[in-house]
Amino acid sequence: MSDIEEQLRPRHSRDEEKADIYDEDGSIRSDFRALVGAAIADRDVLFLRKEVAHLHESEMGDLIEAIQPDQRLALITLLGDDFDMTALTEVDDAIRLQIVDQMPNEQIAAAIGDLDSDDAVYILEDLDEEDRDEILAQLPFTERVRLRRALDYPESSAGRRMQSEFVAVPPFWAVGQTIDYMREEEGLPESFTQIFVIDPTFKLLGVVDLDRILRTKRQVKIETIMRETNHPIPAEMDQEEAAQLFEQYDLLSAAVVDEGGRLVGVLTIDDVVDVIQEEAEEDLMRLGGVGDEELSDSIPETSRSRVPWLLVNLLTAFLAASVISLFEATIEQIVALAVLMPIVAGMGGNAGSQTMTVTVRALATRNLDIHNAWRVVRREAGVGLLNGLIFGVLIGVIAGFWFHDANIGGIIASAMLINMMAAAIAGILIPLLLDKIGADPAVSSAVFVTTVTDITGFFAFLGLATWWFAI
Amino acid sequence: MSDIEEQLRPRHSRDEEKADIYDEDGSIRSDFRALVGAAIADRDVLFLRKEVAHLHESEMGDLIEAIQPDQRLALITLLGDDFDMTALTEVDDAIRLQIVDQMPNEQIAAAIGDLDSDDAVYILEDLDEEDRDEILAQLPFTERVRLRRALDYPESSAGRRMQSEFVAVPPFWAVGQTIDYMREEEGLPESFTQIFVIDPTFKLLGVVDLDRILRTKRQVKIETIMRETNHPIPAEMDQEEAAQLFEQYDLLSAAVVDEGGRLVGVLTIDDVVDVIQEEAEEDLMRLGGVGDEELSDSIPETSRSRVPWLLVNLLTAFLAASVISLFEATIEQIVALAVLMPIVAGMGGNAGSQTMTVTVRALATRNLDIHNAWRVVRREAGVGLLNGLIFGVLIGVIAGFWFHDANIGGIIASAMLINMMAAAIAGILIPLLLDKIGADPAVSSAVFVTTVTDITGFFAFLGLATWWFAI
Repeated sequence: MSDIEEQLRPRHSRDEEKADIYDEDGSIRSDFRALVGAAIADRDVLFLRKEVAHLHESEMGDLIEAIQPDQRLALITLLGDDFDMTALTEVDDAIRLQIVDQMPNEQIAAAIGDLDSDDAVYILEDLDEEDRDEILAQLPFTERVRLRRALDYPESSAGRRMQSEFVAVPPFWAVGQTIDYMREEEGLPESFTQIFVIDPTFKLLGVVDLDRILRTKRQVKIETIMRETNHPIPAEMDQEEAAQLFEQYDLLSAAVVDEGGRLVGVLTIDDVVDVIQEEAEEDLMRLGGVGDEELSDSIPETSRSRVPWLLVNLLTAFLAASVISLFEATIEQIVALAVLMPIVAGMGGNAGSQTMTVTVRALATRNLDIHNAWRVVRREAGVGLLNGLIFGVLIGVIAGFWFHDANIGGIIASAMLINMMAAAIAGILIPLLLDKIGADPAVSSAVFVTTVTDITGFFAFLGLATWWFAI
Repeated sequence: MSDIEEQLRPRHSRDEEKADIYDEDGSIRSDFRALVGAAIADRDVLFLRKEVAHLHESEMGDLIEAIQPDQRLALITLLGDDFDMTALTEVDDAIRLQIVDQMPNEQIAAAIGDLDSDDAVYILEDLDEEDRDEILAQLPFTERVRLRRALDYPESSAGRRMQSEFVAVPPFWAVGQTIDYMREEEGLPESFTQIFVIDPTFKLLGVVDLDRILRTKRQVKIETIMRETNHPIPAEMDQEEAAQLFEQYDLLSAAVVDEGGRLVGVLTIDDVVDVIQEEAEEDLMRLGGVGDEELSDSIPETSRSRVPWLLVNLLTAFLAASVISLFEATIEQIVALAVLMPIVAGMGGNAGSQTMTVTVRALATRNLDIHNAWRVVRREAGVGLLNGLIFGVLIGVIAGFWFHDANIGGIIASAMLINMMAAAIAGILIPLLLDKIGADPAVSSAVFVTTVTDITGFFAFLGLATWWFAI
């Protein structure tokens, strides 16, 4: 069995869906971790080359995250040229920064020269300017120009995420000539699925998918089989917007052009998949009231990132408390109200969260817009009314029996109905309004919605009780 | 200007990022909607063929969602053969079902014959068995067998999402022979990025990316340039698991194999992107306490889908209320406690949600596992302690001044500290535990976490007060 075969063997046994460095939970197997840890401690380069060097970049990334922090740089240094820096694009930001900060700039420069430009930019963009310049200065001219140009585009833009390596041919070439060119040219990108057609000034004319080339006779001219690129992506476009184009039009890759319509790079679906994943996570985290924290953040960092949201909530909690304090006299006489009032506020808060979640998702996927907003508002109000009736009656009966007082049952039932309606309307109008004025509905809706439901809940319940019992 | 050029013109003007049937919010422009609506009412087939037929399937899907429900089938019928059924895969489930239910089975069968098998399956799988069989019976033999096989795989499996059309060649063919085959063969899939290498029994031997073929001289044998497929996807594999493989290994497409390792189809990244998006949305919706509802669901449907969660919350709310009722005597004497107690419970609930959100995300992205769980628990406890101290002091001071009573300030500060710690620990342990026993942490964590923080909050605050004032 050849070396290569042996390396590949454990990774494609038919029954295993995952390479077997993973246990069934999808974490790195602990015996493998231990073996690697021991090999690093023993500086056993032979073992590492044999068992670790061949790992896929994402497996290597997982391994780096799994081993002891102080062993990470050692692993990379021991592997030397066998270490593919692409793996660093697969680890947490904090861990990558830690590792890169410890590496001498010469080592980074040497390693980065072999990377695709998008991966190189990913690693360079987090470094401080001084280190970055030092590393760039050690790269060959074309490489340096490419990376500098990509780094000049704004963060999170298509220009940052694009790959500067691509295949481009003039329109008058024949299919045969194009194939011959690809057979001989050494400097082609590592992998590609389409080739671009450009004029002498690099203006983008069209695109040809590789399967189209393979189906076409040698003498046919490229310009007759190219298709117009309906969706060239301006380099300044935000990566999230670019991702939406990919999703909508099922693109595999797309040309990135500068203001003059000149081809500067290509954005590929694998980078876009990461963007989609990140954006979806961002929405989730924002709705939960946390920023873009990572599990590897320290306690003070994490605490700091969560305090602002809690602070806002503190203010609104005092607002709600001050509503309660208006009714101190009523509570003093009927303590049952104090027992029951959190139920009204809490149920309203949950109903509001439901509506808000649906609204935020619909806004993110562009399913909610001016045309159907009115219909959706009516629907939510209807749902609020229906659920308000159901839960109003339910709570009213339970509370009435609990405190042997039909009045209290009737009051809490009415308050619940009012609050469920308020929850529905706040749950949809607040995110819509925030979106309209350009704020991110995911980040700020929750606090406003629960404020509305808390205040409405306390006010309706205690107010109705005060009026009914004429206290 | 040729017809085709004219059709394409408005879609690739350089300044526009989107086809101009969209307004700046990404919704279908209302004047376009109105024009199309009028054309449908007037049965103006010429207009529809000229302005609508050429739309991309996803644009057509958006248009179908935007027009009046009763015009949808009319549009499809008027367009006739110019309507690409693929557009139906781009609309909400409820709308698709509505349309397909109204269409005669013959019309569906005729239209479905032209689709890629994955799109055909997508439309067929929602139909009831009788209609489905009737439609399948009208399809040509090979088509029917293909679709039946795909439909036999479990819902949400790779076999359901795969495309049964692919290019496969034997290993002993030369690159030249392969290219010649593709130039002559009529029945190739609409688009593809790799070709598969199989033995006479359809057993998968390897895969060759198209760029590799184009770089290789004609006389080279396919077997020398093919690479092993490290990640063939079993047809029964859940689509979410398959999507994770795509993400981890940056795959563009992957072979789908049956139990015998025989090639049965190909899963492509564009379908996987949809899966990733759906799964991320599912987590978001579950955390918000809503099921997989769509904006087009009716009021009773929506209400029904939200009731279970609210019901669970009602139970836990009464649990919390019964804790309060234990302290009725205390509240009767110090009404300030009733005013302040929702603050303690509410702040704890929010802190718990923060921790829970981070935990649920970390579990979904497999960043949290047995190896780092203990470290993460300690970190969260630390954050809870730190934030508990900050907010305990803050609230204590405010409450002390508000009610002119340092005792109340001290009591609420201590209760807040206790509840923030409880929130941190519940926020991480509950999702971890649910995940361990195989439950979905996104769907059930929130209710348990807020139950813990409500009960702890009320108990700590009112209990401390009772003990301190010795009531």
